[in-house]
Amino acid sequence: MTSPHPIPDLSRLCVHTATTKPWDIETAMERYAKAGIAGITVWRDKLEGRDPETVGRQLADSGMEVVSLCRGGFFPALTAQKRQEAIDDNRRAIEEAASIGAPLIVLVCGAATGQSLEDSRSQIVDGIAAVLPEAESAGIKLAIEPLHPMYADDRSAINTMAQAHAACDRLDHPLVGIALDVYHVWWDDTLPDQIAKAGELDRLFAFHICDWMTPTSHLLTDRGLMGEGCIDVSGIRAMVKATGFTGFNEVEIFSTRWWESDQDEFLEKIKDAYLQHS
Amino acid sequence: MTSPHPIPDLSRLCVHTATTKPWDIETAMERYAKAGIAGITVWRDKLEGRDPETVGRQLADSGMEVVSLCRGGFFPALTAQKRQEAIDDNRRAIEEAASIGAPLIVLVCGAATGQSLEDSRSQIVDGIAAVLPEAESAGIKLAIEPLHPMYADDRSAINTMAQAHAACDRLDHPLVGIALDVYHVWWDDTLPDQIAKAGELDRLFAFHICDWMTPTSHLLTDRGLMGEGCIDVSGIRAMVKATGFTGFNEVEIFSTRWWESDQDEFLEKIKDAYLQHS
Repeated sequence: MTSPHPIPDLSRLCVHTATTKPWDIETAMERYAKAGIAGITVWRDKLEGRDPETVGRQLADSGMEVVSLCRGGFFPALTAQKRQEAIDDNRRAIEEAASIGAPLIVLVCGAATGQSLEDSRSQIVDGIAAVLPEAESAGIKLAIEPLHPMYADDRSAINTMAQAHAACDRLDHPLVGIALDVYHVWWDDTLPDQIAKAGELDRLFAFHICDWMTPTSHLLTDRGLMGEGCIDVSGIRAMVKATGFTGFNEVEIFSTRWWESDQDEFLEKIKDAYLQHS
Repeated sequence: MTSPHPIPDLSRLCVHTATTKPWDIETAMERYAKAGIAGITVWRDKLEGRDPETVGRQLADSGMEVVSLCRGGFFPALTAQKRQEAIDDNRRAIEEAASIGAPLIVLVCGAATGQSLEDSRSQIVDGIAAVLPEAESAGIKLAIEPLHPMYADDRSAINTMAQAHAACDRLDHPLVGIALDVYHVWWDDTLPDQIAKAGELDRLFAFHICDWMTPTSHLLTDRGLMGEGCIDVSGIRAMVKATGFTGFNEVEIFSTRWWESDQDEFLEKIKDAYLQHS
């Protein structure tokens, strides 16, 4: 959809490194900065084999703002040992976020097939609570991202804004909030109220944009560029803006189709779609 | 999951003709009856090229109970002409249901890309209201089936039990109720309350079962047999039973994998899974 109130410039545009999957972190940094992208969200797979401190210095030199680290989470598991491994991994994520200068970690909270969603939700809350001391020491925010209900089997037991609010309520901590991705919540008729509530409670920490393709050929890797699908991105952005949100609009597109295209051209298309359809 | 309180026999087992897609209606009738299936839900594509009255007599002779006709709906559209065509088609569905002796039509309500979900929901309510006189004359119930949020783009703007209740509230008619399919709603943490409410208001008209595969390879045609996936089918059935529901448990599985298998063997597996995992 064409936005009735277009974004005037690129100053609040952030791109996730997963959006340009073929590029390593060095290439992404160089091309994003050259293209005038203002913010970058770094996915952890891009840090593999790198020293996070070095990447942090490169990011600082790039002139871009480091918006967040993606992703922590995946707390639920059927055994205590696996749950402890997840907690340990989230502690490493907090260290990495501090090293690269990211103020926030996005949590894809996880779900364990073989137990109830209620049990998984409790383990998510327990897992976040376990890493809060490290988050406090490092001053890193943790953002629970409600995932689309089609991911409730093994990616996240938190599938609506209401459930994300419930988890935040249980944790009741200023470093714990919500990352809102239009892809996961656009269908929810309670969305306006849930976004307003997140604003009132100062827990709307991040805002991710993309589009929903019709038909969708793959549950994970067939997202669209804003304007290609049916999501009213600008309408949801207006609700987010109305809460006083001044953070970045983060473009997070997993798309085999776009990954197979020229990534520099894709980045230009992202800028155009951002200005016209967000 | 293995059921902690298994179903004792097959007397409430219904199979949808779409579950055994390779079979035409005559084959499905013969094989279901031979296999001891008690109920049958007929999909409209199976009636193509047939006289519904003749099929109705064959169904009566089969000894099986005709549980419902699938499916009406698809009311929303961008033009008044298209919406009228949908209403006309639903009137034909009511005639067909009466002809084959089905007391109920399942509604996949529809959604129109290019307009808001709110507009689509209003058009759904208007469409159902438009065909209610014919439904009254024929004594046919209409069951709104909330569809999984991954179908909100073009299959149904009604994606939760709460939204189905809201549509029923607006129509406020004893012939309008809800068809509950575990596949669409298993992830919803408000499900126990929504099912109880449906029972209290006498609007739980149908109950469909299958399972959710991990991973799911296709949004439409990768459903599982009960026990193959992560849905607590028996837990949801217990909630349904607790409302006083005495209707059929309808097996509705769209699965390319199962359709490619021997359909007689599949029917035996359905019976086993029904007794063990429902």
